[in-house]
Amino acid sequence: MSFSPLLQELITSLRALPGVGPKSAQRMALHLLEHDRDGARLLSQALLQAVDNVGECRRCRNLSETPLCPVCDDESRDHQLVCVLESPVDLIAVEQTGGFNGVYFVLKGHLSPIDGIGPEDLGLDRLFARVDAGEVRELILATNPTVEGEATAHYIAEQLQDAEINITRIAHGVPVGGELEFVDGGTLAHAFAGRRSLKRSQDD
Amino acid sequence: MSFSPLLQELITSLRALPGVGPKSAQRMALHLLEHDRDGARLLSQALLQAVDNVGECRRCRNLSETPLCPVCDDESRDHQLVCVLESPVDLIAVEQTGGFNGVYFVLKGHLSPIDGIGPEDLGLDRLFARVDAGEVRELILATNPTVEGEATAHYIAEQLQDAEINITRIAHGVPVGGELEFVDGGTLAHAFAGRRSLKRSQDD
Repeated sequence: MSFSPLLQELITSLRALPGVGPKSAQRMALHLLEHDRDGARLLSQALLQAVDNVGECRRCRNLSETPLCPVCDDESRDHQLVCVLESPVDLIAVEQTGGFNGVYFVLKGHLSPIDGIGPEDLGLDRLFARVDAGEVRELILATNPTVEGEATAHYIAEQLQDAEINITRIAHGVPVGGELEFVDGGTLAHAFAGRRSLKRSQDD
Repeated sequence: MSFSPLLQELITSLRALPGVGPKSAQRMALHLLEHDRDGARLLSQALLQAVDNVGECRRCRNLSETPLCPVCDDESRDHQLVCVLESPVDLIAVEQTGGFNGVYFVLKGHLSPIDGIGPEDLGLDRLFARVDAGEVRELILATNPTVEGEATAHYIAEQLQDAEINITRIAHGVPVGGELEFVDGGTLAHAFAGRRSLKRSQDD
């Protein structure tokens, strides 16, 4: 093998990135060294800055370099409407729809007794304290539609059974723009169970 | 948008990597911050170390942090057999075949008058000086089989027409393991033109 040691180290380090295998790491390292040393320098700085300074928002546990993240710090948002998510990526996905004006609570995981992840690891005590303090009108449980995500949502709903707030779960059903033919059975069953009337209600 | 500025900066910097679009950059940044801060720190260091210390070998122009790269510094290799390549990635590809025991000369590009890249940008003066000094027995031209690569190979061969060395070009033909049906016409034509006899020569 004819890599110089530093080059080899760079290639190995690049494998820390998700989805980057040995070949891509090689290509990336050579590209940076041959064509974009400024970019590599900037990336090195940005990595260190982010790792050293980005912590979590003390209200919603989202990634943030300030004590309160931009969402929690935004007075124009509805702070009584709280969307519970599993991870910061989900938060970004919801934010990008542009249709949600409430705030978030990021669990950073889901209940998983087998991995020893319990309610306290998800910061649920903090969430429940906010509910108890009357700070929440509606809790939208938007954990992933996986077994663990469902279990986590059900656990939260159960714990807050006696709280006087709305607790909702995001709808499961066929994706917009999808074709029934390609939708899996579980989703289709949910879509039928969650069907909604298109007739105006008799009160109208 | 709800990224903190440092996170946004990290995402932007990750786009310097080849093949990384906005979505992958997001995923990479969040993965590092949520699950692999040590990896991010190592990557940051490796980038800086490589950018600051990896230069080029003074003999073959390959990436190297020492004045002579490991290949040029290897006494057990045949230094009279020089393979001319367009880039360090090609060098790695040839090294990985394990079948080449000569040394390399990396052009870092190809002749391209339209981009103002002439022989001096490819370090050809240095290569020719080595030939003139009698240091080379055979020059294997392994530039890419593209128009520019062919032109570069031909230019080098022409310049060294009077030198008393062997000048060869790697063979074009059908890839091993490929199927004729899927090979393009140009390659197939080359494969026919470059056909070799399987009969033993009459001298045997």
